[in-house]
Amino acid sequence: MKIGLDIMGGDYAPKATVLGAIEACKVLSADHQLVLIGDKPTALALLEEQGFSADKFEFVHTTEVIGMGEHPTKAIVQKPDSSISVGFKMLKEGQIDTFSSAGNTGAMLVGSVFSVKSIPGVIRPAMASIVPKLKGGLGILLDVGANADCKPETLLQFGVLGSIYAELIYNIKTPRVALVNIGEEEEKGNMLALATYPLMKETELFNFVGNVEGRDIFSDHADVIVADGFTGNVILKMAESFYVITMKKGLRDEFFDRFNYEQYGGSPILGVNAPVVVGHGISNPEAIKNMVLLSRDMVESGLIEKIKQAFQ
Amino acid sequence: MKIGLDIMGGDYAPKATVLGAIEACKVLSADHQLVLIGDKPTALALLEEQGFSADKFEFVHTTEVIGMGEHPTKAIVQKPDSSISVGFKMLKEGQIDTFSSAGNTGAMLVGSVFSVKSIPGVIRPAMASIVPKLKGGLGILLDVGANADCKPETLLQFGVLGSIYAELIYNIKTPRVALVNIGEEEEKGNMLALATYPLMKETELFNFVGNVEGRDIFSDHADVIVADGFTGNVILKMAESFYVITMKKGLRDEFFDRFNYEQYGGSPILGVNAPVVVGHGISNPEAIKNMVLLSRDMVESGLIEKIKQAFQ
Repeated sequence: MKIGLDIMGGDYAPKATVLGAIEACKVLSADHQLVLIGDKPTALALLEEQGFSADKFEFVHTTEVIGMGEHPTKAIVQKPDSSISVGFKMLKEGQIDTFSSAGNTGAMLVGSVFSVKSIPGVIRPAMASIVPKLKGGLGILLDVGANADCKPETLLQFGVLGSIYAELIYNIKTPRVALVNIGEEEEKGNMLALATYPLMKETELFNFVGNVEGRDIFSDHADVIVADGFTGNVILKMAESFYVITMKKGLRDEFFDRFNYEQYGGSPILGVNAPVVVGHGISNPEAIKNMVLLSRDMVESGLIEKIKQAFQ
Repeated sequence: MKIGLDIMGGDYAPKATVLGAIEACKVLSADHQLVLIGDKPTALALLEEQGFSADKFEFVHTTEVIGMGEHPTKAIVQKPDSSISVGFKMLKEGQIDTFSSAGNTGAMLVGSVFSVKSIPGVIRPAMASIVPKLKGGLGILLDVGANADCKPETLLQFGVLGSIYAELIYNIKTPRVALVNIGEEEEKGNMLALATYPLMKETELFNFVGNVEGRDIFSDHADVIVADGFTGNVILKMAESFYVITMKKGLRDEFFDRFNYEQYGGSPILGVNAPVVVGHGISNPEAIKNMVLLSRDMVESGLIEKIKQAFQ
């Protein structure tokens, strides 16, 4: 297996990414080859600084970098030798089996859809994130920002994508899927939720358990929480802010600790023809390591094939 | 001033409401008359039990109660002698100057719009709530659920309503108004946010300061945070759940303490022709007392007149 990693992506790249690659390398098995995509001389210098053998990695040298604030579509087109553009080209051509980056999220989304493309039948790919559960364990929240406006059919598909992801990556059997809404009852909601509920209620594609309200995001009502990308993004960022607040205030608790994105590595882009993970912009080496491991798990679990089968 | 209070509304009514009325009575000035609307014999028995003189109150006896789970429109029509229906009739006829209830939120909304009606020019009234600020003080969030689907013009008006409310009730001078969005930049967002931003940017009706993301709800970016009622409701309930979680875990902190809805009394319905407050269903006497005081403040501050002027 070849695991592609953008070493230029993220606020603390390339140092955090190269150090993360080293940490990942230490736990990957011998047949899992990390491919570092980015400025090779810089990577070599960082490895030497750390006293870690460069022989452990493959390198693909690139000369351009897509900045965090750049316009995704323009950047992908105008910077063909950027680490993200090259990564997706390699992923498309099968030179790597998975690609991850803590860089420009929009460019990762655009790159996915332009290069490896959506799985036939998938209306819109989604980005998923984890939410810790109060009683322990994790849930999946999607979409967290790839699609600001959604149709009912798109939300229905997010249920399928999230359900398969929860089952294969987090070993949750027959995941309970719920819809974010402003009431528990079927007749509550905005037009989107009202139109989505009956589709989910009738589907045999996943185990729908009804609506969840804002207060139930962290409770044990559901394993997979479906929202449009606007609402999901607000939920994710609010949850992140609570983690930051409790940390700053020194309020340590096992539950709040499980909000720590570093442990999860990043958000998968679900519904495209290859495993793609987007890391948090502020990723440190630990987060990068876990992004690489998530990337590996997505390959090993056969996630893409499972999603393809579901949409056949 | 006559302050109408529904003593039948809320999970712990009539006991919590009557006890709350007693507490409010102790701090209201002599010319502020509390009018208790609901089952009079029960109220008298509770007052006697507490050894508190019934002479301090006016009573309006009603024979019906709208339950928390009832369909708002049907209930308002089918129960004309319910405490909520009678309260709104009195408010409309000027027998009371303000009306509050911790009962069925939907019935309070429908009652407001059917009886005292929207202020001319206001497309849709909104419900507002408070959000504590990390650096101290409070912000206003609206709409928190009255309007699940909104138009850009409606969100613009929420900015006006929230700005006037923040200024008159919380003494925030020239409140900074922000739009909930999934990015800070003008070009980020769903279709609604994209269409609302330019309206807010150009308006002279309030002090627009741009977008706020989910992570900035509790930061000092803005005093008034505008969202559609779907997103606002999810934000409010998530914030409430965090308060509950920190309480349960014994993580006491001044910031989290300021989430306690009991201190704020309830959510005003802004944009109708009289001061109306909806309390939390689980209101205890302290919350009821503060709901009554908020109700009074809305009358005393001349809020309704100010809003009318703004929409002329």
